[in-house]
Amino acid sequence: MAEELTGNCLIAQSGGPTTVINSSLAGVITEALNHEEIEEIYGGLHGILGILKEDLVDLAEESQQTIRGLRHTPSSILGTCRFKLKKAQDFDRVLAVFKAHNIRYFFYIGGNDSQDTADHISKLARERGYPLRVIGIPKTVDNDLVATDHCPGYGSVIKYVATTVREIAGDNESMGQGDLVSILEVMGRNAGWIAAGSTLAKRREHPNDPPHLIYLPEVAFSPQKYLDDVQRILSKRNYCFVVVGEGLVDQDGNYLATAGAQTDSFGHAQLGGAGEYLRGLAQQHLSVKARTAKLGISQRAAAHCGSQTDNDESFMAGQAAVKAAVVQGETDKMVTLIRGDGDQYSCETGLCDLEDVANGVKMVPVSWINDDGVSLNYQFTKYALPLISGEMNIPYENGVPKFVHLDKIRVRRLLDPHVFE
Amino acid sequence: MAEELTGNCLIAQSGGPTTVINSSLAGVITEALNHEEIEEIYGGLHGILGILKEDLVDLAEESQQTIRGLRHTPSSILGTCRFKLKKAQDFDRVLAVFKAHNIRYFFYIGGNDSQDTADHISKLARERGYPLRVIGIPKTVDNDLVATDHCPGYGSVIKYVATTVREIAGDNESMGQGDLVSILEVMGRNAGWIAAGSTLAKRREHPNDPPHLIYLPEVAFSPQKYLDDVQRILSKRNYCFVVVGEGLVDQDGNYLATAGAQTDSFGHAQLGGAGEYLRGLAQQHLSVKARTAKLGISQRAAAHCGSQTDNDESFMAGQAAVKAAVVQGETDKMVTLIRGDGDQYSCETGLCDLEDVANGVKMVPVSWINDDGVSLNYQFTKYALPLISGEMNIPYENGVPKFVHLDKIRVRRLLDPHVFE
Repeated sequence: MAEELTGNCLIAQSGGPTTVINSSLAGVITEALNHEEIEEIYGGLHGILGILKEDLVDLAEESQQTIRGLRHTPSSILGTCRFKLKKAQDFDRVLAVFKAHNIRYFFYIGGNDSQDTADHISKLARERGYPLRVIGIPKTVDNDLVATDHCPGYGSVIKYVATTVREIAGDNESMGQGDLVSILEVMGRNAGWIAAGSTLAKRREHPNDPPHLIYLPEVAFSPQKYLDDVQRILSKRNYCFVVVGEGLVDQDGNYLATAGAQTDSFGHAQLGGAGEYLRGLAQQHLSVKARTAKLGISQRAAAHCGSQTDNDESFMAGQAAVKAAVVQGETDKMVTLIRGDGDQYSCETGLCDLEDVANGVKMVPVSWINDDGVSLNYQFTKYALPLISGEMNIPYENGVPKFVHLDKIRVRRLLDPHVFE
Repeated sequence: MAEELTGNCLIAQSGGPTTVINSSLAGVITEALNHEEIEEIYGGLHGILGILKEDLVDLAEESQQTIRGLRHTPSSILGTCRFKLKKAQDFDRVLAVFKAHNIRYFFYIGGNDSQDTADHISKLARERGYPLRVIGIPKTVDNDLVATDHCPGYGSVIKYVATTVREIAGDNESMGQGDLVSILEVMGRNAGWIAAGSTLAKRREHPNDPPHLIYLPEVAFSPQKYLDDVQRILSKRNYCFVVVGEGLVDQDGNYLATAGAQTDSFGHAQLGGAGEYLRGLAQQHLSVKARTAKLGISQRAAAHCGSQTDNDESFMAGQAAVKAAVVQGETDKMVTLIRGDGDQYSCETGLCDLEDVANGVKMVPVSWINDDGVSLNYQFTKYALPLISGEMNIPYENGVPKFVHLDKIRVRRLLDPHVFE
């Protein structure tokens, strides 16, 4: 047992939302209620920005019904931010807020930037002799955090993407035309995990099922090879299904398509991203018909098509963070997901140092990509398949999913307003 | 009771697929098995094109498991086409195929173009003294057929769109930035029914819920009004949620954005459709951040988020077609959906003349659109809400929906190949 540390806990969310980030929040709150060392359970609004502004809410005031509803509510319910703490006075301010509210436990749910922030706060507190336990909880649809087998949020996004591929593919096949290129653009700026996950749309023992071509940032993109790939597929079947991650790069690592960056005139002629780029190539050089769909934010918000496994693990990660801090007295760590060795998939939590995860990016291993550069082998499927297992059973009202909203009872401010410089 | 007509029946699908067009097919097959007047149950592959080519399959050979699975399998499982019968010799060929295979019942599942085709075939058979009963079954996500209260396929697409709006909106709200324009492009080239249906994402008694601005082809688009609309919303809340139908038109009825039509050079700089057009406008003139999602084909294929009501009605429409033809001896009609008068939603089937539906287009009534031109009033909600009621419970395999495939046992050809001129 660790030395007892009694005080309040603070939870915040950071970076892009996922369908399960609130499940981790529910895990933290539920577990925190089990420990007498934790007196008040506060939430910081809009990540570190809300902490700087002393914008805190009392999560223990929320109804049990609401906390339960967090388990199927997408979005970052506490609000999120992309603000990066850099200045010394900002770090000082965070510590001042923690001291004013007797925060002794800080749980930060986010990706690598967020874990970097948590790491800095943790080290600063230690330096100043302020007893504080900081535990990060992983979150990212991009699945690119090192030190964890996979990331909460990933299983749900690829379940939705693979489902969508299978559904669109049936439609494409119905059309029966011999020259249709169907392009689906998915997220993934730096790593191709989401695009790769679309391979799960293939039925077992049906390697020629769609998607036929998958373009990942891990493989340098060549327009000519793409055109050859499309022609090869269209010579054999009546449509070619392409999945492309938004971060398509050339041999030199430059992005080939940047959504919305170029605008020539009054709204005309602007690049629509990687999918539109591939459509342009196919239409212009192959005289085929090409159609795009771009799931955009919907893919990281589609709770209605979430993975129960992903959701359960996200909740478990939240609980594990509290146990690590309160029971084991850990700090400056992030919760990791560890896959069991057995044939049957199993997953438990572990811990890693925050600084180990802070600045790394995990790419799809090259050994999991086939030599053709546009498909994934069995090693990827073995890795990803268990993560999409199980369907969420979410409540509906008036025909659409029913999500919860927080009452957000504010914690009284004790400090002067922060001056942003 | 109608005069008894014994022979084979032929079913085909036409136009764009929906999530429930196969449910209508299942309804036809299931009901056909109840009537001794129907001997063989054939399917025509790829609509009228397969009939011209004498490309027929024996649907009675398919397993019961498969027919049951059609009820949740999106896409047009028999294949579809956009081919329009025009030439006299093509019509003659259709009749020759019908005669060769003793087709006495023809069920055509499709939109207004398809009903027009069915109408012509029906009239030609009568003219030539060939006893044939032709019944159309409505199908279109666009919901623009006249003479029917609503169209099979519509409820499911707006359930998915409204779900997606609610999910994306939560994500947008999380971000907490004051200048985000979130744009969702949906289908609907001529009528705004799908875009209008997104209003169902609003909670009851929460008129300010997203979507904040809905642009329909029924209201002429003005770029300046759009910019004013966006600014008005952003002055009150931290993001502006826009839904736009693909068929955005100006005062003169010209399309403002045509997906994929313009390509300037090697794949660069092409219009990505209405959503990208609105993004360009907002970014360039308001200095705000704008993000788009374009559901594309996924919206008419998303069986995993289909409406049980829509599905049940589609099945019922298929059954009704067979009953009308066999029991009532009707021909040259389309099945319609008729809404009951009571406070509680109810729906039964009726019949209308094929020629009444063949060339009409039903727009969203102007009286259902608020004076602001960008939102729908309670009359629309009252109309649309019952159509999205009930969630489909579809089977999954390996984490993705399990759809069925037909064995497609071919019917032996009896004629010489058709010569397309």
